[in-house]
Amino acid sequence: MPFSDLAKKAKLASLKIAELDTEVKNRALNKIADAFEVNKHEIFEANKQDLAEAEMLVENGEITKSTFNRLKLDENKMRDMIQGVRDIANLEDPVGKVLFKRELDEGLVLTKVSCPIGVLGIIFEARPDVISQIASLAIKSSNAVILKGGKESKNTNKKILEVINGALAQVEGFPNDVVQQVFSRDDVAQMLTCDEYINLIIPRGGNNLVKFIKENTKIPVLGHANGICHIFVDESADIDIASRVVTDAKTQYPSACNAVETLLIHKNFKKSDELLTSLQLSEIKLVSNPESWDIEYSDKILSYKFVDSVEEAINHINTYGSGHTDSIITTDGSNAEKFMNNVDSAGVYFNVSTRFADGFRYGFGAEVGISTNKTHARGPVGLEGLTIYKYKLVGNGQIVDDYAKGVKQFHHKDLI
Amino acid sequence: MPFSDLAKKAKLASLKIAELDTEVKNRALNKIADAFEVNKHEIFEANKQDLAEAEMLVENGEITKSTFNRLKLDENKMRDMIQGVRDIANLEDPVGKVLFKRELDEGLVLTKVSCPIGVLGIIFEARPDVISQIASLAIKSSNAVILKGGKESKNTNKKILEVINGALAQVEGFPNDVVQQVFSRDDVAQMLTCDEYINLIIPRGGNNLVKFIKENTKIPVLGHANGICHIFVDESADIDIASRVVTDAKTQYPSACNAVETLLIHKNFKKSDELLTSLQLSEIKLVSNPESWDIEYSDKILSYKFVDSVEEAINHINTYGSGHTDSIITTDGSNAEKFMNNVDSAGVYFNVSTRFADGFRYGFGAEVGISTNKTHARGPVGLEGLTIYKYKLVGNGQIVDDYAKGVKQFHHKDLI
Repeated sequence: MPFSDLAKKAKLASLKIAELDTEVKNRALNKIADAFEVNKHEIFEANKQDLAEAEMLVENGEITKSTFNRLKLDENKMRDMIQGVRDIANLEDPVGKVLFKRELDEGLVLTKVSCPIGVLGIIFEARPDVISQIASLAIKSSNAVILKGGKESKNTNKKILEVINGALAQVEGFPNDVVQQVFSRDDVAQMLTCDEYINLIIPRGGNNLVKFIKENTKIPVLGHANGICHIFVDESADIDIASRVVTDAKTQYPSACNAVETLLIHKNFKKSDELLTSLQLSEIKLVSNPESWDIEYSDKILSYKFVDSVEEAINHINTYGSGHTDSIITTDGSNAEKFMNNVDSAGVYFNVSTRFADGFRYGFGAEVGISTNKTHARGPVGLEGLTIYKYKLVGNGQIVDDYAKGVKQFHHKDLI
Repeated sequence: MPFSDLAKKAKLASLKIAELDTEVKNRALNKIADAFEVNKHEIFEANKQDLAEAEMLVENGEITKSTFNRLKLDENKMRDMIQGVRDIANLEDPVGKVLFKRELDEGLVLTKVSCPIGVLGIIFEARPDVISQIASLAIKSSNAVILKGGKESKNTNKKILEVINGALAQVEGFPNDVVQQVFSRDDVAQMLTCDEYINLIIPRGGNNLVKFIKENTKIPVLGHANGICHIFVDESADIDIASRVVTDAKTQYPSACNAVETLLIHKNFKKSDELLTSLQLSEIKLVSNPESWDIEYSDKILSYKFVDSVEEAINHINTYGSGHTDSIITTDGSNAEKFMNNVDSAGVYFNVSTRFADGFRYGFGAEVGISTNKTHARGPVGLEGLTIYKYKLVGNGQIVDDYAKGVKQFHHKDLI
């Protein structure tokens, strides 16, 4: 099917799913979870095909062992995948929320109500469990979705989508074409230019994928290319907190986007030697070199630099950071305030690890991704980030001319 | 100055204005209003130079008489311009609002707080009063701004900016370079590609300007190209309401983006002849022709079409509309519900004129523009549309590893 036909079908599906009740959407999600349980062995079989091909790619050095591991679906991952779908069914519906209700004049009531965005384009790499997660988030938020997975997981992706759409077909009132999939590079190229039908692109994968997408589309992209997170250890920092927090931020999961990459230390911090030694004892390799200020290591490597003041730390972060998450370790409340107000990042932290930047840890119940955008959604994004709003205005024949001529006046009274 | 240097200065200014108190920003705004009062004759003089040149352009047919009129600043427009600045000073500060406050665990508190977007790029046509309005909105929302006006109003724009920056220079603590201006086409081209420093583009002008900008930048654009608004007169409509509302929506200000362009009439509406006759009596020219379904007349011309059902009306609007504002006239509440839920537009109205789509009428106190985007801001946009948010997380040494290992648990307790 030509991509434009598929996109048109997604657009039509998005208009239909927009009007579904919460109950139908939740029924659909639970049906998907049930279908995964029933058909998991078929999914494992498809996954084995992909793994067999991937094994050769690992041997030829075309993909890494860690890509291979991400590709592999086992009982544990399947259980998490199924639970993930059920968890999304249990979340509050982000659509149809009344954001405000205002009487503009007697008998003229304006309601701002949340609604879906429309059609999402999702481009992801070799993690087949992403399909299930994204399809579920799209359904819960009443958006249609077009998925493009990595070629390494083609068989698994096909089978998972077959199971999802088989389940959805059994749900009364659930429209067709809400979840569709494409496979070729040409389809990706068309997706990125299809701003007539696609309202939001969400890349799920490494920096290069995200950068490529951001550079090649005018459609809004939700995500982040880099995660250059900083921790600034101030003059008055508590050494125990500094050592514990930096170690956690670097070693708890070094390849996470919210892992710390650069440590800034106030030149008058008396225990800097002790701090650096403790980090080395945690097997962190330390680097101090201006060329490293914008490197995301995704490994147990940490750049560090001494700075003269909290202002220099803020300036360094606003210059070299990626606007993701940055933390100050201090006992000086006014420096902490200054840091949190002036660092221009999605997350600004005080005496805690940067690794807390996460939709689940924030209590959103789901995570669409982490955004470093300055519009729409910033930081960890929950279901709300897949919605926008519309204004409903209800009256009984009101016209603007009466207000323009002063026959009537607005009184703008908030009802909710 | 090369554009990139100017943009870099704007970025630095945006970080400084982000930390200003409401009181300093309001003082700056009132200082600008005062300065307009003191220097209005100088501004009129500069405007006369532009008008003299524009007169020749009108004679040569290079600009229209209505462009000439928009260019002209008189005492009335100056008074409105000054009052507009003072009104913005009196609005609530959109920055620093606590959007939620949540205890993730004991002693670990997450606050979501509104903050400025950063640097705005504003491209506008021959209406010099836009500078004052946009500069004021930017200051109130703590954003830096780079303005590019029409070449026809070059002298007026220069003088107005000189007055604004003269006023700002007298405000203690107010940073430099918050409001800057560029003049050449080359500057516009550079602005549109400068996504490193510019966070949001706002075009203020005709469809062609907005379309050009949307097609030539990856930076988010806040605005709308078309305003193809519809009114659907249902089978059960009240003829008086239908006639009054359609007349208002077409004639009260025909060149407004929220004026109606297409009238859809249910084929069983018994008083359609009476309705069409009443519209013609209001000097509305009626057109019925499939080629007119996507025309924005900006004049007293109205396309009309008979439809079989509310579903056909919804489908027509979702196919040919621009997602701006559409209204149903009916006495059937369930059709009204269906229409408002299924029409995919920023404004969905029931028995009222489409002309109500406006930030002032909605009670926002100011209008940045009207957006047909599906992300960030939709419909009439107030000051809130110039903000985003950041997450502040405050703790006392918490690390993620404790939660990953189950030593500690999140309890996610909302404090506000």
